[in-house]
Amino acid sequence: MADLGNEHLVQSEDPEHPANLIPRLCKQFYTLGWVTGTGGGTSIRKDEHVYIAPSGVQKELMKSENMFVLKYPTPKYPPSARQYIRKPLDLKPSACTPLFLAAFERGAGCCIHTHSQWAVLVTLLVEKLFGRKACFEISNIEQIKGIPKGPGKGMLGFHDTLRIPIIENTPFEEDLTEFLEKAMEQYPDTYAVLVRRHGIYVWGDNVAKAKTQCESLDYLFQLAVEMHKLGLPWT
Amino acid sequence: MADLGNEHLVQSEDPEHPANLIPRLCKQFYTLGWVTGTGGGTSIRKDEHVYIAPSGVQKELMKSENMFVLKYPTPKYPPSARQYIRKPLDLKPSACTPLFLAAFERGAGCCIHTHSQWAVLVTLLVEKLFGRKACFEISNIEQIKGIPKGPGKGMLGFHDTLRIPIIENTPFEEDLTEFLEKAMEQYPDTYAVLVRRHGIYVWGDNVAKAKTQCESLDYLFQLAVEMHKLGLPWT
Amino acid sequence: MADLGNEHLVQSEDPEHPANLIPRLCKQFYTLGWVTGTGGGTSIRKDEHVYIAPSGVQKELMKSENMFVLKYPTPKYPPSARQYIRKPLDLKPSACTPLFLAAFERGAGCCIHTHSQWAVLVTLLVEKLFGRKACFEISNIEQIKGIPKGPGKGMLGFHDTLRIPIIENTPFEEDLTEFLEKAMEQYPDTYAVLVRRHGIYVWGDNVAKAKTQCESLDYLFQLAVEMHKLGLPWT
Amino acid sequence: MADLGNEHLVQSEDPEHPANLIPRLCKQFYTLGWVTGTGGGTSIRKDEHVYIAPSGVQKELMKSENMFVLKYPTPKYPPSARQYIRKPLDLKPSACTPLFLAAFERGAGCCIHTHSQWAVLVTLLVEKLFGRKACFEISNIEQIKGIPKGPGKGMLGFHDTLRIPIIENTPFEEDLTEFLEKAMEQYPDTYAVLVRRHGIYVWGDNVAKAKTQCESLDYLFQLAVEMHKLGLPWT
Repeated sequence: MADLGNEHLVQSEDPEHPANLIPRLCKQFYTLGWVTGTGGGTSIRKDEHVYIAPSGVQKELMKSENMFVLKYPTPKYPPSARQYIRKPLDLKPSACTPLFLAAFERGAGCCIHTHSQWAVLVTLLVEKLFGRKACFEISNIEQIKGIPKGPGKGMLGFHDTLRIPIIENTPFEEDLTEFLEKAMEQYPDTYAVLVRRHGIYVWGDNVAKAKTQCESLDYLFQLAVEMHKLGLPWT
Repeated sequence: MADLGNEHLVQSEDPEHPANLIPRLCKQFYTLGWVTGTGGGTSIRKDEHVYIAPSGVQKELMKSENMFVLKYPTPKYPPSARQYIRKPLDLKPSACTPLFLAAFERGAGCCIHTHSQWAVLVTLLVEKLFGRKACFEISNIEQIKGIPKGPGKGMLGFHDTLRIPIIENTPFEEDLTEFLEKAMEQYPDTYAVLVRRHGIYVWGDNVAKAKTQCESLDYLFQLAVEMHKLGLPWT
Repeated sequence: MADLGNEHLVQSEDPEHPANLIPRLCKQFYTLGWVTGTGGGTSIRKDEHVYIAPSGVQKELMKSENMFVLKYPTPKYPPSARQYIRKPLDLKPSACTPLFLAAFERGAGCCIHTHSQWAVLVTLLVEKLFGRKACFEISNIEQIKGIPKGPGKGMLGFHDTLRIPIIENTPFEEDLTEFLEKAMEQYPDTYAVLVRRHGIYVWGDNVAKAKTQCESLDYLFQLAVEMHKLGLPWT
Repeated sequence: MADLGNEHLVQSEDPEHPANLIPRLCKQFYTLGWVTGTGGGTSIRKDEHVYIAPSGVQKELMKSENMFVLKYPTPKYPPSARQYIRKPLDLKPSACTPLFLAAFERGAGCCIHTHSQWAVLVTLLVEKLFGRKACFEISNIEQIKGIPKGPGKGMLGFHDTLRIPIIENTPFEEDLTEFLEKAMEQYPDTYAVLVRRHGIYVWGDNVAKAKTQCESLDYLFQLAVEMHKLGLPWT
């Protein structure tokens, strides 16, 4: 693998720079149990650059210099223009990369992938209770108001039903891309897609939105599992 | 929105100053799972000022300069005198503000609002087990002694029954105020009101009391959920 | 309350000095969920002094200067000689004090009192399953080896049965003393006594032993509750 | 016990040196609930030295100078050449030592032993559901991909079945060695062995692999227990 240089892309004193922010987020996500054992991932788009955490690195030990950077021109450029412009020589790019890019195509500024057990359990419960074609649905819980109704449509209301599509897992993570994109088409208002027996992809207009939406969803999944244990219906 | 100035109201070297204390408390509450995804809130009254955490900010990243400050004169002044005297221009005031003020009307020095899942589950279990009109009741648990009997009445005893009223949630948080105030009238000794499918409001004479009462209640809600799973009655 | 002076008793640069160690332990116990809402307490005996955390202080904010110190001469002196020699003027001594002293009478160097929910749930399950007279019993779990067989008898073996007596709670904590002492007589090998619907008292020859025994017991209580949920017997 | 000297073996400025890394890992494992009450242990092989955390020390307080060091020559040397070359005079070597060495015999660079409650519960559930001879099996969960197929065989795939052998516990930890070695022979591809009613031994080619494999397994055990509670099968 050739050294692409461009070290300056991951060197910044600004704590909010993606190369500094991704390691901080990964550490926090580790504490939340979202990225156990190097699972999961995070990516941030800033202007025409996409920063991606590498594959196989312990999330709580991630460093700025571990970041991959992808040239991501404005939509008028073809996808083929999206090439790595900074690669750590000793690391592998995340298999989630094409999935993150699918979110950026929809205008996201940040995409988070977790292996949260609550997300996994919810995909299993939905299949058991409502069948393989069903999505996750919950309503009349205040925390739903932390999730947008859809791009430019404001936030969900208390009585609205939150719907998160569920796609089947594939042996290779990159093969999920096609199904993720289909789910995005079928649910144009969603900011998240659950992956059965795997976890979830959550995105948002910026880092704060992606992260708080991911937290609100995880809260709702945990609540849903506990509600099910107590014989309480979700809708 | 006009800049009201008054920056000095949120600038203090004293770690116990409300503008420093609210961010510290919010960070701690985040760790406790009470304010996930910008949910929940905290407010402190100090002399004739009420400090309120803003809406929509990640609770573990809250800063002193994010605080709203409200002029809150002694009771002889009309409520109309209660106006913001410091507003961060880029933030929205918390929708919980009128609910916090209802607690301050009762003499509270601090009010905490959480989205604790234990609180939400307890409101659902009470409805299922005892109906919509029922309040949460528990007795004969040592931790009950961490909750006051009522203003000026000392703490609950081990054999006393703790009763926390439950109000129904409304689509807009500010619309809860009327129901919260009714519950306060109906349960004049309570220091907390549960909101079905939403969370809880807890207040106290000062920050330490509001916080430790909130902790004791959350402990009791978690215990009650676990007791129910194990077939153990609450009273 | 007269100022007893003796400030030097709580001033030390040594992090292992009881006045520094108790705040550090209390903070750690707070994180473990053992001392929520100012519940629980900790006491250390060092030579002829007993250090006790005060009542009503938030455990994660405890400071050295909050400590009470009791003169605790060697056993030949009458209990009446056991008097406070250092009192913070603005704080109340812990209601657990006579219970801690009962442990020191048995030669303990440290005594910990927690409100752990696992301890409370175990006392309720034992009552439901085996009646009010039963103690908690568990065997054939490796962690049992973290608990001593009795003073001077080494540690329990894997196949041994751990037995922890359970006493009924009383409205006033100090009234527990008599029942705690009876349980200590009836179970002369125990290093812990459970209090129904309340928590547990655990002691040890020194701080490290009291703390690790408390951790091992809490581990076993949590495991026992989970085992019961899964239909797995304790012995 | 004679002072063997060799203090330089545990003195290094390098945070990645085993004598610094083991304390850091132990502290992290304490937070994960894996080494409660001095249970569990960790060992790292570096070149011809094996570093082992001592017995009976609180894991979150472990220090570099607490480490035992064993001379561990290349395989052509007889096991009798494996002798301590550094011993803290006031501490006892870990009873897990022969079990760690069994992993190093198989080429491991690091071995972790936890008392995780999820591991213990899984061993009890497997016995109850499938009998004493059964191993733990799970498939079709993404996190399985965090576990290797076997030495030099790459990682397990999503549809592969993860199998972890379970051995019975013995009263003395060192007596487990024979059964651990038998399980290693019977399951030549495994990187972990569960011990019924006790915990797990997990090893890896290096520290990062041992740790992340241990995390992935613990995740799967927790998920398996929760799946069982919800009536969801493991395979």
